[in-house]
Amino acid sequence: MSTAGTHHETEIIVDPEVPLVRIVREFDAPPEKVFRAHTDPELVVQWLGPRSLEMRVEHYECRTGGSYRYVHSRDGEEYGFHGSFHEVRPNELIVQTFTFEGDPDGVALEKLRLEDLGGGRTRLTATSLVDSFADRDAFVAGGMETGIQEGYQRLDELLARSTESDSPAQGEGGPQEPTM
Amino acid sequence: MSTAGTHHETEIIVDPEVPLVRIVREFDAPPEKVFRAHTDPELVVQWLGPRSLEMRVEHYECRTGGSYRYVHSRDGEEYGFHGSFHEVRPNELIVQTFTFEGDPDGVALEKLRLEDLGGGRTRLTATSLVDSFADRDAFVAGGMETGIQEGYQRLDELLARSTESDSPAQGEGGPQEPTM
Repeated sequence: MSTAGTHHETEIIVDPEVPLVRIVREFDAPPEKVFRAHTDPELVVQWLGPRSLEMRVEHYECRTGGSYRYVHSRDGEEYGFHGSFHEVRPNELIVQTFTFEGDPDGVALEKLRLEDLGGGRTRLTATSLVDSFADRDAFVAGGMETGIQEGYQRLDELLARSTESDSPAQGEGGPQEPTM
Repeated sequence: MSTAGTHHETEIIVDPEVPLVRIVREFDAPPEKVFRAHTDPELVVQWLGPRSLEMRVEHYECRTGGSYRYVHSRDGEEYGFHGSFHEVRPNELIVQTFTFEGDPDGVALEKLRLEDLGGGRTRLTATSLVDSFADRDAFVAGGMETGIQEGYQRLDELLARSTESDSPAQGEGGPQEPTM
């Protein structure tokens, strides 16, 4: 089974009316798998963020009323992120808050929706809302695009590994990391 | 000691740029007391919302990463509310999410800031951000103003009772409800 698959574009859309960014991306996996890749911290660390950063999860209770904190690091520099999970509806919706600790007074309200496209495909729509256009535009200008696109390519790879391990024609040798 | 005090206006300001409501109100009590009245569920039930509604707290962990759910009721009708506490900085800041369960897909990001005005006075600024102007305007048109104004009058009364019980010239008979 090939891991190459279709190349998917990540659309990053700046809303003209409200200080919100909308990200739309399709995946060659059913909503259940895309959801698990967002909720299980052992899977999240394998794809969230650009390849050049190491990710360490401090806690990650992805359930309604839970919270999280993780740290991205590169060359001894650490970048912390934390927030709360306002609502988690299996295979459908995650509503959470998000703060980058380098800007401790900043906070975004994020919604992730998964839509079943049939045929083992999913459309993900993620929105991030802040309370000023200046903050929203600084976030977009700050190179978030690269991190998001590279993260979703890594997620494609994780989902493809999982599709392989579902297959009865599984090859030699187990995976080195937890898989789906 | 009189409980009459100064009459304070509640300003409710609809932001022209972003889908946000801003509420500004002063209190004749220091930030520590106004903060406690927002974080201790035994105090919160004594003032939050209009007088005509009973309030029952299901859980209320007002700390960074905590969550809450409470129910307002009147004549057998129940209105549930829930959310998460993204950040709680003592006497200064509470950032939380808020959903009215009658509109389960709606969610607001709320920030409460307390500012010490000196002389035992506090300015409270509360903002509520949603992702559409239509939802923000429906919320304002839906009579939230009465509930907020009446709630803050009840909070004035609670804070005044607490000021009395701080006084060495405390009168006969203990209070019926937990006080500050």
